[in-house]
Amino acid sequence: MRTVHILPLVGALFLPLTMASRAQGEGDARSVSPIYGVSLPEGYRQWELIAPALEGEPLNELRAIVGNRTAIDAYRSGTLPFPDGTVLVKLAWKRTPSQEFEPAAIPGAATTVQVMVKDSRRYAATGGWGFGRFIGGKPVDEVQHRTCFACHEARVKGHDFVFTRFAP
Amino acid sequence: MRTVHILPLVGALFLPLTMASRAQGEGDARSVSPIYGVSLPEGYRQWELIAPALEGEPLNELRAIVGNRTAIDAYRSGTLPFPDGTVLVKLAWKRTPSQEFEPAAIPGAATTVQVMVKDSRRYAATGGWGFGRFIGGKPVDEVQHRTCFACHEARVKGHDFVFTRFAP
Repeated sequence: MRTVHILPLVGALFLPLTMASRAQGEGDARSVSPIYGVSLPEGYRQWELIAPALEGEPLNELRAIVGNRTAIDAYRSGTLPFPDGTVLVKLAWKRTPSQEFEPAAIPGAATTVQVMVKDSRRYAATGGWGFGRFIGGKPVDEVQHRTCFACHEARVKGHDFVFTRFAP
Repeated sequence: MRTVHILPLVGALFLPLTMASRAQGEGDARSVSPIYGVSLPEGYRQWELIAPALEGEPLNELRAIVGNRTAIDAYRSGTLPFPDGTVLVKLAWKRTPSQEFEPAAIPGAATTVQVMVKDSRRYAATGGWGFGRFIGGKPVDEVQHRTCFACHEARVKGHDFVFTRFAP
């Protein structure tokens, strides 16, 4: 005697995914970066590793840079500039001494997640890149976002404004 | 007038894959570790990141630990001991100062790749784990492999002999 309404169920299942996809670069004001409108991309924690890195004092962080399919393909084929649709995400954690193996340091608390999105038209004024810096899933303020491109432009213009190289 | 023989083509396509699969734990003598018979798993560079790590003096290495699907699922669900079929791979590179951003260190030359394979029956004498340590794709000698389990047993028995935790 029970009637199962499939369509609302399907809608409920797909709605979050649709919203998340739309949020990438376009999403609602709460979750996107100032200036650039960049959001945390869906599923980035599962993306392929480009390289780890270590950030010294004062931040003292272990980092891992991952990329979407477009990014990885560009790295593997040596394509520069990176094509539109490239998304790079840098995860960061406090560098913490291992309690189990003295010479080692391991990830402690997560700190920031930083995103670069390539869209050569939308972000023409900043080398084709949009930037987002997130703490606890929320974008930091506009003042911090004003510093992104200036540093990338000054230091890695010759590598399409991207610091990270692929670790073989 | 040409006759296309499909079956040999299919065979040629699948043979390398079959060999690679078989090699994991069983492969030919040149490419598997002494004692354990563990080989470099196919496609591990594409696997999902578990965590980065830093190894201090004297090795001075940046590292990234990745895992196959079984490993990642176990980490995400908090499953201990890790189920049979779990494969963990630790990639390592020399820690090298970034020439583009002074506070940072980045991966230099690749050094070792280290593998742990869970097979509770085959490796019953070593906590269910088989070990492989590779340099330039070739396993190192038996003396080095004798040190693996003793260290894992002494330090991380309570975490199923695995040092690495999942970095959120």
